[in-house]
Amino acid sequence: MAVYTDVGDEELVAFVAAYDIGEVVSFKGIAEGVENSNYLLQTTRGSHILTLYEKRVRREDLPYFLGFMEHLAEQGIACPTPLHARDGKALRELCGKPAAIITFLEGMWPRRILPHHCAGLGEALAGMHLAGEAFPLTRANSLSVESWRALFESCAARAHEVKPGLDTLLETEIGFLEAHWPSGLPSGVCHADLFPDNVFFLGDRLSGVIDFYFACNDLFVYDVAICLNAWCFERDGSFNVTKAQLLLSNYRKKRPLSDDELQALPILARGSAIRFLLTRLYDWLNHPEGAMVQPKDPLEYLGILQFHQQVRDPGAYGL
Amino acid sequence: MAVYTDVGDEELVAFVAAYDIGEVVSFKGIAEGVENSNYLLQTTRGSHILTLYEKRVRREDLPYFLGFMEHLAEQGIACPTPLHARDGKALRELCGKPAAIITFLEGMWPRRILPHHCAGLGEALAGMHLAGEAFPLTRANSLSVESWRALFESCAARAHEVKPGLDTLLETEIGFLEAHWPSGLPSGVCHADLFPDNVFFLGDRLSGVIDFYFACNDLFVYDVAICLNAWCFERDGSFNVTKAQLLLSNYRKKRPLSDDELQALPILARGSAIRFLLTRLYDWLNHPEGAMVQPKDPLEYLGILQFHQQVRDPGAYGL
Repeated sequence: MAVYTDVGDEELVAFVAAYDIGEVVSFKGIAEGVENSNYLLQTTRGSHILTLYEKRVRREDLPYFLGFMEHLAEQGIACPTPLHARDGKALRELCGKPAAIITFLEGMWPRRILPHHCAGLGEALAGMHLAGEAFPLTRANSLSVESWRALFESCAARAHEVKPGLDTLLETEIGFLEAHWPSGLPSGVCHADLFPDNVFFLGDRLSGVIDFYFACNDLFVYDVAICLNAWCFERDGSFNVTKAQLLLSNYRKKRPLSDDELQALPILARGSAIRFLLTRLYDWLNHPEGAMVQPKDPLEYLGILQFHQQVRDPGAYGL
Repeated sequence: MAVYTDVGDEELVAFVAAYDIGEVVSFKGIAEGVENSNYLLQTTRGSHILTLYEKRVRREDLPYFLGFMEHLAEQGIACPTPLHARDGKALRELCGKPAAIITFLEGMWPRRILPHHCAGLGEALAGMHLAGEAFPLTRANSLSVESWRALFESCAARAHEVKPGLDTLLETEIGFLEAHWPSGLPSGVCHADLFPDNVFFLGDRLSGVIDFYFACNDLFVYDVAICLNAWCFERDGSFNVTKAQLLLSNYRKKRPLSDDELQALPILARGSAIRFLLTRLYDWLNHPEGAMVQPKDPLEYLGILQFHQQVRDPGAYGL
């Protein structure tokens, strides 16, 4: 949970007065999100989210993130979209930090993943990939294969604290991924962090997707692999092939996957596992005493990596 | 900030189905409050607060707290009130913890206290005291003069870590307060924790009071003294007599203070300072590593105590 900045009522009222959204009625910090401070802002015209961008988000990336949300919403994708103040600006400043008011998205994220959630996810992900094709800005994925060795090296000396032998295992895997990482596959704007807490449902219906602050240009099928890992493993570490099959088949109904993309799925799934294993390992080893955010267990992703290491072809994913 | 329990979407939908408040549209943990977990619950019929009572609140006190809120709301006092499920119960259970859905109160608490806030506060406090007179339940103040020595003794050995000599100073003051604490003054239900973050305003108008989880039967003028300390000292420690005068005069317009009550004000203000100094000291010395809630500075209340120690009569408060 995260609210890093206490916004004063007077500052808030002045900030909101620059928009055509009515008068402030209520303002409460939300215990969600890790990178930024989020507040539920109710005005006489309805509910909104106010986001303050804290230091973990690079200021120069914000036009890409906010622009992509706005682009998707214009294409009819259900997602929050930044509001423009009367001066035309969506990205403004509050309490000395970059800030934006975003439309409110109804729904709740599913705590217990059911197969139908994965079906809705597949369709929504393909829809986002297609809708993003006309988006003019680009942003490299700063957490893809080129960055893993440096991230690993910053943790290598202490990786054994989490599990003996983890350092050797990671180094071998990163070497393999660097040597075999695919190129030339279809790419475009990826969400790159589509975990269950970023996908809202109302009853059985997917109501929208949030949190575009890792969005970047990368292989579409890598985004699919991130979802496979985040949605299709049970809490006991087992792989649920029914969920994977529903995720993939509903994705393919909207955006077909080529043979090359399908063949690349196992290695991209390993890459996705390494990406989250490494960032969780880094956060685990470096989280400050008394931090408000509890770091996530890196070893959950070791089990996922080891599953994909023994996959020989994409049939293992229910195809 | 505090959300100690992750409520699942399925459990929540089942819980809400027992009420006549429509369907769940959104559910977000709120980064406010210390004792309990609070969530903003939006349904097709509007906004509500869902509170889960965590272990720091005694279960047997909940009927008093919830009953008092409901009583005040029936008397026309602006405050949240618990909703009854179709089975008639307001206090129910969710995730194995006592839980209630409370009406949503519009407004924001003032970060920078202005004189008019203190005027509104005085009037609202007197209104609550009068409205509480017909409330049939009683609850002793577990943080009043009888409890201070034991609380002090649990911190005495380490009080010098916060300030050298603090142990002697506290022991002397507690002895003085025990010897001179008044009795026989008008009493009734007190809020007992009416800090600025528990009083909401919409523009200049006080829109209501929240957080009745320290409410108890005690001297009315002790509740006034708590507000004097919480609202009328500036951040630099200085006492703002204009604010105190507005607080007291607006209180007295609605509920006159007797001469005995006025004469008792300096000692009650010292008692209120000791009460918050001691609980803050305890929390400062005992807060767990990695706790989500940052403890408040106990020494803020040492300055307030020392101000009241040199007061000879209630004229010092602008009377």
